[in-house]
Amino acid sequence: MKIDEKDYRTIWPNIGAELHKNDSILSVEIIDQTMLPHRFEVKAINSLQGMVTAIKTMQVRGAPLIGAAAAYGMAIAVHENSSDIHIEKSAKVLLQSRPTAVNLAWAVKRMQQHIIAFPQEARCNAAWQEAALICDEDVQMNHAIGHHGLSLIQAALTKSGKNTVNILTHCNAGWLATVDWGTALAPIYAAHDAGLNVHVWVDETRPRNQGASLTAWELGKHGIAHTIISDNAGGHLMQHGQVDMVIVGADRVTSTGDVCNKIGTYLKALAAFDNHVPFYAAVPSPTIDWTIQDGRTDIEIEMRDADEVSYMSGLASDGSIQSVRVTPANSHALNPAFDVTPARLVTGIITERGIAKPSALKQLLE
Amino acid sequence: MKIDEKDYRTIWPNIGAELHKNDSILSVEIIDQTMLPHRFEVKAINSLQGMVTAIKTMQVRGAPLIGAAAAYGMAIAVHENSSDIHIEKSAKVLLQSRPTAVNLAWAVKRMQQHIIAFPQEARCNAAWQEAALICDEDVQMNHAIGHHGLSLIQAALTKSGKNTVNILTHCNAGWLATVDWGTALAPIYAAHDAGLNVHVWVDETRPRNQGASLTAWELGKHGIAHTIISDNAGGHLMQHGQVDMVIVGADRVTSTGDVCNKIGTYLKALAAFDNHVPFYAAVPSPTIDWTIQDGRTDIEIEMRDADEVSYMSGLASDGSIQSVRVTPANSHALNPAFDVTPARLVTGIITERGIAKPSALKQLLE
Repeated sequence: MKIDEKDYRTIWPNIGAELHKNDSILSVEIIDQTMLPHRFEVKAINSLQGMVTAIKTMQVRGAPLIGAAAAYGMAIAVHENSSDIHIEKSAKVLLQSRPTAVNLAWAVKRMQQHIIAFPQEARCNAAWQEAALICDEDVQMNHAIGHHGLSLIQAALTKSGKNTVNILTHCNAGWLATVDWGTALAPIYAAHDAGLNVHVWVDETRPRNQGASLTAWELGKHGIAHTIISDNAGGHLMQHGQVDMVIVGADRVTSTGDVCNKIGTYLKALAAFDNHVPFYAAVPSPTIDWTIQDGRTDIEIEMRDADEVSYMSGLASDGSIQSVRVTPANSHALNPAFDVTPARLVTGIITERGIAKPSALKQLLE
Repeated sequence: MKIDEKDYRTIWPNIGAELHKNDSILSVEIIDQTMLPHRFEVKAINSLQGMVTAIKTMQVRGAPLIGAAAAYGMAIAVHENSSDIHIEKSAKVLLQSRPTAVNLAWAVKRMQQHIIAFPQEARCNAAWQEAALICDEDVQMNHAIGHHGLSLIQAALTKSGKNTVNILTHCNAGWLATVDWGTALAPIYAAHDAGLNVHVWVDETRPRNQGASLTAWELGKHGIAHTIISDNAGGHLMQHGQVDMVIVGADRVTSTGDVCNKIGTYLKALAAFDNHVPFYAAVPSPTIDWTIQDGRTDIEIEMRDADEVSYMSGLASDGSIQSVRVTPANSHALNPAFDVTPARLVTGIITERGIAKPSALKQLLE
């Protein structure tokens, strides 16, 4: 999407025009997301180790983007050395950078299988092309999610009879989490680009503040009206008719339509249900886990470092980015990273294949 | 309650034993709550203007404590000058320090009426005694709330069959918000002091973080087990049986039992209802506004400064207390300070007169 009128993706080879001339590709560029929203810094990655560091330190984050970054990590590795043993070793190093990231494992395996099918001299070219293809597929998938979601926003606008549709979102499921468009924000970008008036309520999304830092930043840079609220405020706004719909992303959707997403999503779904506000999750269809029936009992929730609750990072008055402690020195904190919203609270799942009620997800396969 | 084994109130004349010898009372002492949880600093207030500043800058905060502080402000004023005109002027200055604080206005008027009934030479003594009485009445009221709430905690412990009862609270309705005991935390202190095992889930309570800073600090100093969680986490914990009851305070309760409290309370009440977790508000009975029927439509919600959402204050690595910006420079924020939990989600209201269902509040008057 746009940053100050200029089109960007979250990851790109540094010489797009010379994609097929292997030697000229020296690096992959990323937006260092740890600096957002305070500084926009593009970082060139020119070694496998550099990409591992970018993934580990969350300079790139969001499942689809991590997959794309890992794919380019494999391409850089093959550029360094195209032997079977180096490819095997590089795949292992990447897989260990974030062991629980499903997209990362998927992308690394796809790259590895693709690359080794070629003779050694053709592997480099094949690797860069495949990484680019993985990125393009992600963009197409999210674009399709946006297209389907746009119809819901149009309908909400018509129904409300107002000039502007107010959409609440939680966490960051925007283009910064993907290669482009995002998932939950794809329908919002599609609506904005189609000329509809959209205003987004952005949950700050404690403890990591992805809403306040990333979602607000990317919406603002693309020119979309938005207002940041504390995670506590959404229910009150819904009670007073100030939210027309909720759209969130998801880390996993069960076959029965339970939605596992960033901690706090469940509370917004309860408030939406209580106030007759439609609640949607927007996901690529591979996010649906057909093996799981009951999200609450069958999905193990990751406990992250309690320091994410105890410390808060931001821009100090001297222009430096500082971390401050917000809790007493001797108090413990607990930091469950996700929660599960039961399907009964979910109006629909928006995917690249279309929109389905949670009870009818199987229709998406037909 | 206790701070490191020593008993404290939030406000006290500096020479308690010499309360009736006017000349020896030079100041009133308070805990500077703007320094918590990072520094425990007692501050001596020895002028009317000093008390006005303490109230304005929220060194003292919480409705009952503001009332007590205003009462002592009047006593200090009379100590300075016991003339009718000075008393009248001092009352006005105090009333303007926080114009919307109902308890402040109540305490100032009570002090004023009490003082002027005495001949001038007796006014100083009368003022200090009345301020002390206002404090003692608050302590007694909260102690009674604690006594009634204790029975609920005992029942929850018996019902759960577990060794420990897990109570979730939102914001700070502890002893720091009152003269002693608190409202929502009074039952918890009573249970702890009665030897019951209590563990408290402390909502950090964005945007002002009263939970993470004040509730966690006061529970820790009294020796009560607690864990700080982001405001997003409570629903997940309830889904997994880790919350036995919710107790919050309230700024206002309608005659029908709607509870107006810190923003985000409504979301916790929804989650409690969805998971069959009892949800209580603990308030002194004067907090019930018998003139209001529908909290959602009839209570105007204060919008506070958006900078409370955009900036976060905490302890920097150099030991200073710093404010950092957590949002993009060009993004707006909205900061509704309270929300209304409909009575249908409230299990009971705990008051100094006893416990009532929201539909049966009138019984408390009998």
